[in-house]
Amino acid sequence: MRDVAIIGIGLAKFGERWDCGLKELMVEAGIAAIRDANLNSKDIEMIYGGTMASGRFVGQEHTAALMADQLGLHNIPAVRIENACASGGTALREGFMAVASGMHDIVAVGGVEKMTDVTSGEAATALGGAGDQEWELFQGITFPGLYALIAKRHMHDYGTTEEQLAAVAVKNHHNATMNKYAQFNKEISVGEVMKSKVVADPLKLLDCSPISDGAAVVILAPLETAKKYNDTPIKISASAQASDTLRLADRDSLVELKATKIAAAKAFAMAKTTPSAIGAAEVHDCFTIAEILAMEDIGFYKKGTAAKAVEDGETAIGGKIAINTSGGLKGCGHPVGATGVKQAVEIVTQLRGEAGGRQVTGIEKGLTHNVGGSGATAVVHIFERYN
Amino acid sequence: MRDVAIIGIGLAKFGERWDCGLKELMVEAGIAAIRDANLNSKDIEMIYGGTMASGRFVGQEHTAALMADQLGLHNIPAVRIENACASGGTALREGFMAVASGMHDIVAVGGVEKMTDVTSGEAATALGGAGDQEWELFQGITFPGLYALIAKRHMHDYGTTEEQLAAVAVKNHHNATMNKYAQFNKEISVGEVMKSKVVADPLKLLDCSPISDGAAVVILAPLETAKKYNDTPIKISASAQASDTLRLADRDSLVELKATKIAAAKAFAMAKTTPSAIGAAEVHDCFTIAEILAMEDIGFYKKGTAAKAVEDGETAIGGKIAINTSGGLKGCGHPVGATGVKQAVEIVTQLRGEAGGRQVTGIEKGLTHNVGGSGATAVVHIFERYN
Repeated sequence: MRDVAIIGIGLAKFGERWDCGLKELMVEAGIAAIRDANLNSKDIEMIYGGTMASGRFVGQEHTAALMADQLGLHNIPAVRIENACASGGTALREGFMAVASGMHDIVAVGGVEKMTDVTSGEAATALGGAGDQEWELFQGITFPGLYALIAKRHMHDYGTTEEQLAAVAVKNHHNATMNKYAQFNKEISVGEVMKSKVVADPLKLLDCSPISDGAAVVILAPLETAKKYNDTPIKISASAQASDTLRLADRDSLVELKATKIAAAKAFAMAKTTPSAIGAAEVHDCFTIAEILAMEDIGFYKKGTAAKAVEDGETAIGGKIAINTSGGLKGCGHPVGATGVKQAVEIVTQLRGEAGGRQVTGIEKGLTHNVGGSGATAVVHIFERYN
Repeated sequence: MRDVAIIGIGLAKFGERWDCGLKELMVEAGIAAIRDANLNSKDIEMIYGGTMASGRFVGQEHTAALMADQLGLHNIPAVRIENACASGGTALREGFMAVASGMHDIVAVGGVEKMTDVTSGEAATALGGAGDQEWELFQGITFPGLYALIAKRHMHDYGTTEEQLAAVAVKNHHNATMNKYAQFNKEISVGEVMKSKVVADPLKLLDCSPISDGAAVVILAPLETAKKYNDTPIKISASAQASDTLRLADRDSLVELKATKIAAAKAFAMAKTTPSAIGAAEVHDCFTIAEILAMEDIGFYKKGTAAKAVEDGETAIGGKIAINTSGGLKGCGHPVGATGVKQAVEIVTQLRGEAGGRQVTGIEKGLTHNVGGSGATAVVHIFERYN
């Protein structure tokens, strides 16, 4: 295995993109990444594309070949990856493996989702496909409901409060105001979260990530030749993935995601580092409780202590560890297939020192954490500066 | 890169499987493959699952994690691959790369589709997602229509006749009568094909592959250790993939699939062999014209000459080259995500000498060819006996 670097990053603005469709989102992010990498698109040897439910959102499958087609990258292998909301992170791991193994040199990894062309009810049903359709969704539970069960148990076991959950959303909205690609650019308060409509008790509207359109692309290359393209290549020092049961009811515990724990432990071992060395992390905050679980399961905080840390400001930019500087899924938006790749784009931006008002000072290492469903898939990557 | 072998194969019977759902199909094929490989399921390090449109067929995404879950393979990385009807072949290539690169030893590659839980109209719409939704399907054309355009042009350029197309279906139905996993087990005649209802002129009902349920699984291992599990490991001597435009209208030619030509040329170079060395091939006959194109684009026949070869019996079992001994997509059935993996199962069965009444004698090498959409993805694998 050889070392792998990210040499180019690109985003299509997240939000309700009534101005364009799936293809235009792919092109917006893809062209930006190719330009950022200073390469000729003909150098790209393979493309992995993460998309969750494009068939149900816009009637389009076969999206990686479409992405290659729209970017003029004809005739190269193109592979769509679908692992629910972890589609982007999984695509990144597949791209990493393709380069690390020596099978390919330059690989593009994209993620895209166009979610706003259907009603929110249809979107919720489509997203339900991330869980067990027969034994969970068909029985009437939705994703807010599944995460509400997790939240209730976490509150019961550790005294986590609704105000502490709200603090996650407040922080992430604040970070998003400094990110021009973010869906939301307004501050919210704990009071506003508390007063927002209950979706699935104890989760309220402002505890939930939104329905979003968006795309993200990164370009990978062998680390040894990365400087040919880019003065600030960022090394991917670990790529790890794990699975768990689709059904929440089959798990040993409701207050941890075992797949996250396994993937994170593997990633830290692979990168030969520890949670305390990470300066910024993008974690999967599809709901506020999910950020709390992630912080604990990755190992940034001991189980039951993360919620207070958020409330105390330890995870704000400038705090002990900056979590979700992009605004996270809550503030930046959550076009499901794009999220895992966008997380990598944010960490690369931070490690390059190009994050502007949301820059974390002195950062040397960053981490991304992408979850599918209620935790049946988790993907963790660790990145570092390379001088 | 190291050599890779298939050490286990398993199928769930293809057909209208009213007796079970998506999960049961996965388990039926998965357990059969694990047993065939004589391994403990705990030895499996990773799973790739090909599924095309499970979101639209049964409301279920995240199918690779579900496959791992249903087979009790918890906590290992599971990755769903979606490349339209080439999802299975693409999954096999990803699995091949994972083992060839040394990243994993034992990898399971599955393909599954449960298509009969929706109406045939809904199924046709879901399958339309393999083409360009905005510029082809939304405008009113369906897949039989796209392939009818190809057929018309082939007939115009080379004098191919409807009776010659019908001969493909007749051969494949005959082969299917000897395959207990096949959807159809009755002979049909050229006259019956000609008299069947026109779907999209010149293609008639019996020129079209059916809507099917089914699953297929293969287990991969490094060739050097394969004999530990299995006395007759089959070597994968080439794995190649290429893309093309999604839209038929954007192609240079209607009478060839460029992605097939590129993938086949790469595969023959990788395996250091030629079309004449192949004893049996499973090619992508979603429509009868597609088998003609495949035979020509892979290089078994010169452009414009394959249709007559079928009519003359050259591609029957015992002929010059046995094509679609399983019955192909037409006779064996076409559960879209499963097809590419089932093709590999058939070639392994032939190379092991276990194909019973449809056994090709003296076979040393075999080939599979799996297409997505109207040719935007093509995947070619070459297999050989290993003594």
